Amino acid sequence: MNLNYPNGKKYKPKELPIDASLKKRKNGSYSNRGMTLEEDLNETNQYYRERKIAVIHKKPTPVQIVQVDYPNRSAAVIKEAYFKLASTTDYNGVYKGRYIDFEAKETQNPTSFPLKNFHQHQIEHMEEVMDQGAICFVILRFTKFEQVYLLEAQHLLNFWNRMMNGGRKSITKEEIEQKGYHIPLGFQPRIDYIKIIEQL
Amino acid sequence: MNLNYPNGKKYKPKELPIDASLKKRKNGSYSNRGMTLEEDLNETNQYYRERKIAVIHKKPTPVQIVQVDYPNRSAAVIKEAYFKLASTTDYNGVYKGRYIDFEAKETQNPTSFPLKNFHQHQIEHMEEVMDQGAICFVILRFTKFEQVYLLEAQHLLNFWNRMMNGGRKSITKEEIEQKGYHIPLGFQPRIDYIKIIEQL
Repeated sequence: MNLNYPNGKKYKPKELPIDASLKKRKNGSYSNRGMTLEEDLNETNQYYRERKIAVIHKKPTPVQIVQVDYPNRSAAVIKEAYFKLASTTDYNGVYKGRYIDFEAKETQNPTSFPLKNFHQHQIEHMEEVMDQGAICFVILRFTKFEQVYLLEAQHLLNFWNRMMNGGRKSITKEEIEQKGYHIPLGFQPRIDYIKIIEQL
Repeated sequence: MNLNYPNGKKYKPKELPIDASLKKRKNGSYSNRGMTLEEDLNETNQYYRERKIAVIHKKPTPVQIVQVDYPNRSAAVIKEAYFKLASTTDYNGVYKGRYIDFEAKETQNPTSFPLKNFHQHQIEHMEEVMDQGAICFVILRFTKFEQVYLLEAQHLLNFWNRMMNGGRKSITKEEIEQKGYHIPLGFQPRIDYIKIIEQL
């Protein structure tokens, strides 16, 4: 039976945005093809917020605004702006009162994770928040295998320092498997990193 | 005695950015004239970071990017973008492992603080992070008197709900003095809100 509103308008079950995004996936499978790591994490964070598990947001892209036009009767238009280098990581928020901070990166490289995905400012930020007792980590995705890992920031810093001391400019996949935690891709949430955090 | 570098270049004591900004003040006083609340808080947060007291950042202004040009051999230029309404508060970070979250607003009104300075999304965000055990508050400045108050989010929510139930659309200065904490303006840091948090 189709229900109508009293005004005759058809009743349509409200679709959650989270379901809408699932449509993007081919063949009705929950495969990750076509979803970026950022989209998966946005979906995951929305899931956490809706269920009051944690409140984590991606920070807006930092932009240096140079020129803004104010046309009559319409919204201000930014006519000239430049991307700025982020001075922090992209994601932060709260889980059971604790401060959570992380960066998420993906690579096409099948065997190692290039450290050029991070920059000095972010590494320093991670050190600072760890000093303050934050839960800090990175989420790394090998896109070829759709494999996602959580690596605690302390390990990333060790690999970073190895590079700064003349060592290799990447983390091998083996090292990530050894020091990090594999996060199996799920349906809802897609990348259940809080589950790993709970165990740490 | 003036010291020179071995290359003959003059030695100049390095100025911290925090000192540079103090120059803006007239007559060498620490008066706040000409400093916005945002500038004062940026300076305060820099002070906290440098002394490892807390790591708090202002989030970048959220912008919807529509068109980007990639000129040869120069940086990408954003040619069309629009300001977006923030879905969270402006400031967050970590203090002794705890998640800190706040919004800062100022008013020219001498007797009350208009609630239109906040929007529904931000109020909901505050409720969400409080549910997760965050330390959440607002910093309110009456610019005419250069008076700054910290008001815990719980009180702001009460005043917001009063408005939603048909009550007044602002918080009186008296109410803020009663429920909030006055933050005396200092030299370094300018607005020592962590001192209040320590006492709560």
